[in-house]
Amino acid sequence: MSQAEEVVHGARFLAEIREQPGGLLRLLEHDDEIARIAAVIRDRGSRLVRMVGHGSSDNAASYGVYAFGLLAGWTAMRDSITLTVHYGTPLDMSGSTVVGLSQSGRTPDVVDYVRGAREAGAFTIAVTNDPLSELAEAAEATIPLSAEPELAVAATKTYVNTLGALALLAAHVAGRGAELADGIRRASQLMETAIPGLERSTAKLALPFSYTGRMFVIGRGVEFATAREIALKLLETCRVAAEPLTATDLAHGPVAALDPLFPVWAIASNDGTLATVQEAATRTREMGASLVASGTAAASIKGAAYTVPVPTPEPPLLSPLLSVVPGQLFAAALARARGLDPDAPHGLAKVTLAR
Amino acid sequence: MSQAEEVVHGARFLAEIREQPGGLLRLLEHDDEIARIAAVIRDRGSRLVRMVGHGSSDNAASYGVYAFGLLAGWTAMRDSITLTVHYGTPLDMSGSTVVGLSQSGRTPDVVDYVRGAREAGAFTIAVTNDPLSELAEAAEATIPLSAEPELAVAATKTYVNTLGALALLAAHVAGRGAELADGIRRASQLMETAIPGLERSTAKLALPFSYTGRMFVIGRGVEFATAREIALKLLETCRVAAEPLTATDLAHGPVAALDPLFPVWAIASNDGTLATVQEAATRTREMGASLVASGTAAASIKGAAYTVPVPTPEPPLLSPLLSVVPGQLFAAALARARGLDPDAPHGLAKVTLAR
Repeated sequence: MSQAEEVVHGARFLAEIREQPGGLLRLLEHDDEIARIAAVIRDRGSRLVRMVGHGSSDNAASYGVYAFGLLAGWTAMRDSITLTVHYGTPLDMSGSTVVGLSQSGRTPDVVDYVRGAREAGAFTIAVTNDPLSELAEAAEATIPLSAEPELAVAATKTYVNTLGALALLAAHVAGRGAELADGIRRASQLMETAIPGLERSTAKLALPFSYTGRMFVIGRGVEFATAREIALKLLETCRVAAEPLTATDLAHGPVAALDPLFPVWAIASNDGTLATVQEAATRTREMGASLVASGTAAASIKGAAYTVPVPTPEPPLLSPLLSVVPGQLFAAALARARGLDPDAPHGLAKVTLAR
Repeated sequence: MSQAEEVVHGARFLAEIREQPGGLLRLLEHDDEIARIAAVIRDRGSRLVRMVGHGSSDNAASYGVYAFGLLAGWTAMRDSITLTVHYGTPLDMSGSTVVGLSQSGRTPDVVDYVRGAREAGAFTIAVTNDPLSELAEAAEATIPLSAEPELAVAATKTYVNTLGALALLAAHVAGRGAELADGIRRASQLMETAIPGLERSTAKLALPFSYTGRMFVIGRGVEFATAREIALKLLETCRVAAEPLTATDLAHGPVAALDPLFPVWAIASNDGTLATVQEAATRTREMGASLVASGTAAASIKGAAYTVPVPTPEPPLLSPLLSVVPGQLFAAALARARGLDPDAPHGLAKVTLAR
């Protein structure tokens, strides 16, 4: 094969994972804009945050629940798109802040939801990598993800920047913007430092999983978003039937499906949820399933066959910025081991226009 | 083997599926109590409903989002348990109605959540099959599921009665209690009439899936709860890696994992979401995966290898009471085909005390 014909599967995907630390710094350049948007949210007196998105954007919304909850003591929810868009239910949204999440800014029902919510009285914010998109046009305010173009079909840097944008927005609402901006800056440095080692460790880790067909990915609290996002990467780039579960929901039925060919990836962070993840890990081992432990508290998971720790950021609610990286790199390595192309998985396009 | 030693795997599970029509009628005996609880909700002027539960109870909460939304125009959400219980975040809940869902009434963090929410000013309601349980004690009001003891580990009749309880509660809030009670009564009759035929069709359907390891179960809107519950039955009783997805989220990545050994079960109802399910079905067929179509609009799904329709109740938002039954019966038949015991899956206990 001549050099011109050579195709490196997953080169973009891997490059974009490596770009994430720089992407977070670019997001921070919009700190003032985010502070101004937070000021509007406070002025309007709305204390219910409705987030909408699909795929990775919806996974990031799972994190938003905790960003707004932990930083501001506010209730943030992943709202039903169907209720208003497909069923046409009129809701009074005058007391709501709406955050529409779409890296492309073109997800049709997210755009429709935001349009309807704005008409129904909500303060609407677009979080998108394309500030000229339909979504940005539909919303009153826009937070640009500034992740630069994402070319691999499977999202990575737009996901991490969406987490960062939600954390910054919630922090400014709570009057803690400067602290969180510093935290994100340091998290970016920690990520930059950690990536080379994580590339090596996940490349080794991927080999024994070359023929794995099914996995659970578990986390809880802030790390449930990470569990969802890692599972999605494994589904779309590696064709593993990977299902995300909260550590506690694993015990409410799904644990019965486990066996030695059905491994579990557990994300453990050093916070109030750690005991639930440890308990789920014990149940996993009792079923004979092998266990990968990642996250800032990976070392505290007993019986893990493989451990992929990440450094702890400050404040700890920023852990998901780092803890998703081993899962992304594992997906890149596993796709390579399987001869699959994570840059362009069969059956997917970069912009999803499905309703 | 002597008769005394004979063990019929899944006898309880199947018996309890068959008891569901009668269970719904027993729930209706509590219509007046539910009306009184709805009156308190209205008196308190709270218009945000926070539902919490795990497993099947959480699946039913996905339905509650639509019951409250469609009937009352209210926002109902599956709230984070972790935020308050594990992270200790103080939230002002004075404007909230809390619905704690647990058939046993003993799920530890659901009980803790309800206790905390009551202290924080919420009006708290327990929905449980044990009105003497801790959960009932922790809440101000209790809706007894009245499903009679559920002995199989995998929930069936308590799930269906939780749907019914949420629909009735939302209907009374909206001043449509009598209409919905009639609807549930008729749905019970439709279910009773449909079960014998569904037992036969799902028994045949299970055979080709005897060695299936992975499935997606898709639905949207009111039927997303059904997709979640059917997937959970397949996980816990048949050890299938079955993942529930909204019809639209399938296109946002997971569709790439499909192949002819990775079938999809689609629940199609005749409402505003039907086009999304039809589109997802088309994507499924394009990936070469085979398709099971169930629900009231099963016949409208093109390219389905198998079709398991159910009758349409009135109002149509009661469809999930019926559309879960083919999935339950399929799980019972598939477990039997695999020599597994759905009454007592390995690794599970009836009351889950995991935190």
